[in-house]
Amino acid sequence: MTEIDSDRAGSGRSPVHPQPESGLSDLRRVGANPDYWYPVALSRKVRTGQVIATAFAGERIALYRGENGAVHALEDRCAHRQVPLSMGVVEGETLRCCYHAWAYRGDGRISQIPYLSKGDGRPPRGVRGYPVREAYGLVFVFPGAPEKAALTALPELPAFGSPAYKTMTFCRPVRCHYSFMHENLLDMNHQFLHRGVVGKLHPQLLESRTGTRSVEARYLFTHVGGKRNRGAELLATEGTGRRGSSDTMIIRTDYPYQTLDLVPQNAERPAFRLWAVYVPEGAEQRTCHAYGLLMIAKPRIPGALHLAWPLIRRFTERVFAEDRMAVEAEQRAWEEQNEDRNHEVFPLILDVREVLRGNGVPLRPSSGAAACGPALGV
Amino acid sequence: MTEIDSDRAGSGRSPVHPQPESGLSDLRRVGANPDYWYPVALSRKVRTGQVIATAFAGERIALYRGENGAVHALEDRCAHRQVPLSMGVVEGETLRCCYHAWAYRGDGRISQIPYLSKGDGRPPRGVRGYPVREAYGLVFVFPGAPEKAALTALPELPAFGSPAYKTMTFCRPVRCHYSFMHENLLDMNHQFLHRGVVGKLHPQLLESRTGTRSVEARYLFTHVGGKRNRGAELLATEGTGRRGSSDTMIIRTDYPYQTLDLVPQNAERPAFRLWAVYVPEGAEQRTCHAYGLLMIAKPRIPGALHLAWPLIRRFTERVFAEDRMAVEAEQRAWEEQNEDRNHEVFPLILDVREVLRGNGVPLRPSSGAAACGPALGV
Amino acid sequence: MTEIDSDRAGSGRSPVHPQPESGLSDLRRVGANPDYWYPVALSRKVRTGQVIATAFAGERIALYRGENGAVHALEDRCAHRQVPLSMGVVEGETLRCCYHAWAYRGDGRISQIPYLSKGDGRPPRGVRGYPVREAYGLVFVFPGAPEKAALTALPELPAFGSPAYKTMTFCRPVRCHYSFMHENLLDMNHQFLHRGVVGKLHPQLLESRTGTRSVEARYLFTHVGGKRNRGAELLATEGTGRRGSSDTMIIRTDYPYQTLDLVPQNAERPAFRLWAVYVPEGAEQRTCHAYGLLMIAKPRIPGALHLAWPLIRRFTERVFAEDRMAVEAEQRAWEEQNEDRNHEVFPLILDVREVLRGNGVPLRPSSGAAACGPALGV
Repeated sequence: MTEIDSDRAGSGRSPVHPQPESGLSDLRRVGANPDYWYPVALSRKVRTGQVIATAFAGERIALYRGENGAVHALEDRCAHRQVPLSMGVVEGETLRCCYHAWAYRGDGRISQIPYLSKGDGRPPRGVRGYPVREAYGLVFVFPGAPEKAALTALPELPAFGSPAYKTMTFCRPVRCHYSFMHENLLDMNHQFLHRGVVGKLHPQLLESRTGTRSVEARYLFTHVGGKRNRGAELLATEGTGRRGSSDTMIIRTDYPYQTLDLVPQNAERPAFRLWAVYVPEGAEQRTCHAYGLLMIAKPRIPGALHLAWPLIRRFTERVFAEDRMAVEAEQRAWEEQNEDRNHEVFPLILDVREVLRGNGVPLRPSSGAAACGPALGV
Repeated sequence: MTEIDSDRAGSGRSPVHPQPESGLSDLRRVGANPDYWYPVALSRKVRTGQVIATAFAGERIALYRGENGAVHALEDRCAHRQVPLSMGVVEGETLRCCYHAWAYRGDGRISQIPYLSKGDGRPPRGVRGYPVREAYGLVFVFPGAPEKAALTALPELPAFGSPAYKTMTFCRPVRCHYSFMHENLLDMNHQFLHRGVVGKLHPQLLESRTGTRSVEARYLFTHVGGKRNRGAELLATEGTGRRGSSDTMIIRTDYPYQTLDLVPQNAERPAFRLWAVYVPEGAEQRTCHAYGLLMIAKPRIPGALHLAWPLIRRFTERVFAEDRMAVEAEQRAWEEQNEDRNHEVFPLILDVREVLRGNGVPLRPSSGAAACGPALGV
Repeated sequence: MTEIDSDRAGSGRSPVHPQPESGLSDLRRVGANPDYWYPVALSRKVRTGQVIATAFAGERIALYRGENGAVHALEDRCAHRQVPLSMGVVEGETLRCCYHAWAYRGDGRISQIPYLSKGDGRPPRGVRGYPVREAYGLVFVFPGAPEKAALTALPELPAFGSPAYKTMTFCRPVRCHYSFMHENLLDMNHQFLHRGVVGKLHPQLLESRTGTRSVEARYLFTHVGGKRNRGAELLATEGTGRRGSSDTMIIRTDYPYQTLDLVPQNAERPAFRLWAVYVPEGAEQRTCHAYGLLMIAKPRIPGALHLAWPLIRRFTERVFAEDRMAVEAEQRAWEEQNEDRNHEVFPLILDVREVLRGNGVPLRPSSGAAACGPALGV
């Protein structure tokens, strides 16, 4: 944990803020900072010799895997007539536009215009190329200043490679600003939304810590009644063999990523660890693509996790669907009201807003109504 | 009948107005006056312990029926994060938001925030509550100044409760400004639109009366040829046993409602009475929900009306579908031209426009493109 | 060929223009000049006594065929309440609005308002009528200054009536500005787009000629490999019996029309001749309707063309679908970028842009978002 500036007990400050954050800029108009590595596709979706379309914050990106196996990321518009390069053809390590067959190298430079002779003059500049890395089964690009890419680390996920954990991967479009997702996960008082699958939970905030780039909350969860879904049971006990009457949940926004660790009572290690990031799609960042890696501790009995896998997936899909319903409703309300009228009473959430605001960037001015929208598939 | 200021014979004034109403404000930008009772749902759609979403002129409303049977109407956005309360849960007489479980009383005040202690400070203000009344199988709300609600009467419909009449209820979304609906019904020269079901009718305007809040027209209808639909026959003769070669039709806009009585030749009472209102849905009031109560006189032979019922409903549905096709085409033309270019030649219609303009209110400035639209179900 | 001002060999000027056309107006905001005859429907779609809706550049047009067989074109909005006249009823040579039964003559003047007496004063002005001509199985209208209609010739298509040719007719909506279509056809370097059906073609520009209203390009096509679709084979050899290793293709924009003639090696006449025009639909001209007449030389063996017909149609449909995919992608990029960032390197295309710009007209200011869109059927 880095950059923790202050500790604060959950009850140390009045949780009631009767006025919205007047005077502050509207968080839903703050853009995600591009100077980080963001996943824009699952690795297995970018097959050798194939090209797909993806996007970051309104920048359309063509991802292709050359014959030697490396993935390249180019601005998804031919320099000639702006036809998407993702409609093109991979040839070795180059990508050829489908229309007039201009060919590009992985860095975006033009390698050939078939109908121009060598002596015909200076060929036009190419297109933007993005730094690319593959890790954790995801293709990451660096949409910010290219010179910062080498200095910026990919997120570290020790559990991903550990033999003690197995990873379930999620990738879903959500029609909301990424900030709603951070607020959703950090405010565990929303368990009422999941009452149908988790029963009646009493979350108690034990402690929270806020830094310039991070907010961390530690909750104690007590199950106080109601029927709990079998998938929820399995997920909370896997790898630990324990089922406590109360579990500890540590949730952390570490800009721009988010993590959640669940530690059952008296267990030495988390029963599961979630890593997530919400990648804005359109230029107005009113939609995002949620990528999640759920690393589940393997139980001592070999094969047990394999059997539990479908139930755990069904449980997590349902929880995610409920969360999505709520955050998309928030986004719709914001669009109708054309401003943020949230009236937050939980200090933790005011803190994470400040972190997201302070680390974000201004939205680029939109170039018209038809900006890159949510229909874009990944 | 109230507020009739002047009488005017249909032929007393030149029916030709070669110029549109230049200098007047665009009627399609005049909002419905909220200081009246408007139906926003059928009573049977709001079941005990259930909540539904409805709207008046861009104000989203959550309607719920508490355990004691009373219907409550709240602003459909939680004060906390603006998630629709219509996604929530009814508990006794309160409504609990689905997300963080904030609970509201029927008047909109917050009754509980589960994770806030009593001593945690002043809870935030709640949401707006609307006065509600149920009558005629409809749920009415009063969207205007609340203190006027008690002073404002519900419409009086003596035929509704009378043993001599039976009521057929209509509830349909129409994609047009409510004013097109008033003009449609008052101008009986549009019978050409219904030629397939009513044959060839010759409507003659006998008399019209205009007040500050009302316009009334009395027509003589003569059937001059063409085949008449069986449902039309039944509707025009029910309860009276008579089928005249000419019927009298009295149509009245009594702001904001509208009525139509059909009295067959030599009959003592109307064969049917229609009461209707067109409730704007979106903030720009380009869509409305038409509510209609068609009160049909019972014939002397018991059970005859029961047998005729499906034919009458089919006939009225077809007439309504034809009217809707026309008024929605008018709305689309208005949207394309971005102004009202209607060129009215019928003085009655100029009068009802003046009544609708004079009793209406300015549209509230829209807060962006995504205002509450026609997709909203009731 | 008229108005040829200058000849220029294809290689006479550097084909590389590293800068876009800075300082020039955005071609995609140039309207099609209305002072020409434009097809707006297939003749067979306008049946006697019937009316259909069509459009030119946001002007909605009602086309109807009177009992005497002549087609009339009226502004598609009743002068009364703007309901589309295309929803109306043809009576003899007049068109009656479906709503209040106002009747119009073929020139747009009102012939009757049923409920107005003769002495009731001056009837309002009617609606706009368009000059109409039928030729080549198409209904042409003249949307410009009416007095110019008689002075403006329909396009001349001698092959259409010739017994040596048979015509295949096309009519398709395309979601792009008409200029993308001209550029697509003139730049034969886009054969890569059709590689799946035409194999590997090497187009060599032999010569181009540019006038104030026209651009003509002469290409030599050499088939250098790859499998060629059977329909392509048939189309290129019909009527000539020859299959050269290289064919000559002459493509010409003769504002606002476009033609393409294919002459096989050593043949005396074209194997086919294409005539096309791209008629803008919406007011912003971001969509068009492509009309094409493909006149195919009849072979000496009677009936052979009949047998080849389905294969030729399938081939041309596929080529058109590929072209449409490309030009619609260009349009989408333009809309996202809200300006033309094309970076043309082929002088011929710079020339045709200049011709389209110089002969076009300013777009009329749009009257709001809901202008006549691509959903309009013809």
